Amino acid sequence: VSLLPARGLIVGVDIGATKIAAGLGTPHGRIQARLVISTPREDPDRLVTAVADLVAELARGQPRVTAVGLGTCGRVDPVDQSVMSSIALGWSRPVALRALLEARTGLPVFIDNDVNAGALGEHAWGAGHGVDDLIYLGVGTGIGAGIVLGGRLYRGATGAAGEIGHMVIDLDGPPCPCGNRGCLEVLAGGKALGAFASTDVPGDSALAAIALGQGAVSARDVFEAARAGDAHAQRLVRRTAEYLAVAIVNVVNVFDPQRVILGGGLAQTGDLLVTAVREALGHWTGCFVDGRKALVSTALGQDAALVGAVAVARHGLEARS
Amino acid sequence: VSLLPARGLIVGVDIGATKIAAGLGTPHGRIQARLVISTPREDPDRLVTAVADLVAELARGQPRVTAVGLGTCGRVDPVDQSVMSSIALGWSRPVALRALLEARTGLPVFIDNDVNAGALGEHAWGAGHGVDDLIYLGVGTGIGAGIVLGGRLYRGATGAAGEIGHMVIDLDGPPCPCGNRGCLEVLAGGKALGAFASTDVPGDSALAAIALGQGAVSARDVFEAARAGDAHAQRLVRRTAEYLAVAIVNVVNVFDPQRVILGGGLAQTGDLLVTAVREALGHWTGCFVDGRKALVSTALGQDAALVGAVAVARHGLEARS
Repeated sequence: VSLLPARGLIVGVDIGATKIAAGLGTPHGRIQARLVISTPREDPDRLVTAVADLVAELARGQPRVTAVGLGTCGRVDPVDQSVMSSIALGWSRPVALRALLEARTGLPVFIDNDVNAGALGEHAWGAGHGVDDLIYLGVGTGIGAGIVLGGRLYRGATGAAGEIGHMVIDLDGPPCPCGNRGCLEVLAGGKALGAFASTDVPGDSALAAIALGQGAVSARDVFEAARAGDAHAQRLVRRTAEYLAVAIVNVVNVFDPQRVILGGGLAQTGDLLVTAVREALGHWTGCFVDGRKALVSTALGQDAALVGAVAVARHGLEARS
Repeated sequence: VSLLPARGLIVGVDIGATKIAAGLGTPHGRIQARLVISTPREDPDRLVTAVADLVAELARGQPRVTAVGLGTCGRVDPVDQSVMSSIALGWSRPVALRALLEARTGLPVFIDNDVNAGALGEHAWGAGHGVDDLIYLGVGTGIGAGIVLGGRLYRGATGAAGEIGHMVIDLDGPPCPCGNRGCLEVLAGGKALGAFASTDVPGDSALAAIALGQGAVSARDVFEAARAGDAHAQRLVRRTAEYLAVAIVNVVNVFDPQRVILGGGLAQTGDLLVTAVREALGHWTGCFVDGRKALVSTALGQDAALVGAVAVARHGLEARS
């Protein structure tokens, strides 16, 4: 599936738990103007109004805006593109996000979850350009994967494919809120890393002062300390990388993809994480395929879901035409 | 992709480590006549001659035989359908199986590995009939998966997709010959089960006498004893089922398939294994999708690769026409 150049512009929107980023995108995925606001949580109406306002502001004086693409946290129904639920947004009931936004903006709206959007964005204009089979790993607070096979997003029977954060890699591991044990997310997600870093901190680590001052250490603190040379923080990064390497080995052995793209919040750390993962892949090998050959770092960085939202709309428009 | 009824008959061949089964198949996957021989190991020429003889015998007096399909152990090159290597057959070098057999039989030959063939067979005429996204788990001495997505076999970038036996589910687990630790195959494969069953056998278990007499217990012994009510054997089956349940949870969370089909040598035990796996899936749950809803038992049983070989040829003929 090629993305033929279309004429119109597309507003892409990345809806995260803390902020919403919106951008005016060209048909080639370049963001020409952008706006960022804090995410209105709990109340879906306020979020819909806020997103409609962002779209209106970006589209003002731009008659060629033809569609809106959204990458959002939460589970998106693949059929009607409603958001089925989102713990991150505080929504426990389905929200007809597409229908509500189309009514408010008067534009066609296309929605997918943020990790799927990131996968489509990297495929169209990022680290997966020119490659038809790829796995995009979004490693942030949680962990998810977007799966592109044969140039198309693979969503599974009910839209739940790619829940790699709940791949069990240590069956004697710590319990996960999903009900299982040893899921990747409770071992290698940003939340898990922060929790590991907040307990049993050696006194000579820079993290000790942070834990004392803030009460808890964040994943970002760990990466900053590791980059500054803190040995304890570097051990924690290596440990996270070890778990991610195992997950990548599993992905490579199951999918044999052309590329595995490491993205998400924890990957926005220069090359620190991807370098550590590549090192860990030196002793966790693929069976027939070397995971190191497939692994690349995100090219779109923190814009993956935003640029990807433009790709979501492009695919949506093409499927209609 | 539908399998339109073709006119000709197809000879299907299942090449295993110990025996080769060949059958004369209708375009609807019914086996009308069959032959079984012991597998000539080590020498590829002898195997080619033996298979060509089986084809000739089945095709004798059958002018409508139009193709030969093979499901074989070992790695099959997705491009030229040579066998890249097969530890089970004792081949350490690539063998141009397709070219050799076409020269000997004068018929078009289509080859895939046995687990992929099993997946295609179940999809066309078995437990996956009418379903477009399915995972076929072949649990025998080793463990592999055949992945059908959108009605087509998914092989990955280099034909190595589906190596689920080397999915790490216990990162502190026992070493695997592949170089990693805690791979599914060293925990739940038939070889692993036999090894577990041959050590630390309680004196009151029926397996103790077998271990003494034979020197080692086989997976088959364990299932037979479990069916006869032996408590120790039943514990071993439950343990195998537990590992398989974790693997199925991982498959379900990653693929969200319509169906997971449990097949292979260890599944040829009535409902013993699938019942135990379904029980284990009661506490190892999918995150959004219940693994128990997706899980079904093989419909083709030990004929999966043989019937699947007919499907391999059908798909091959269709792709050509």
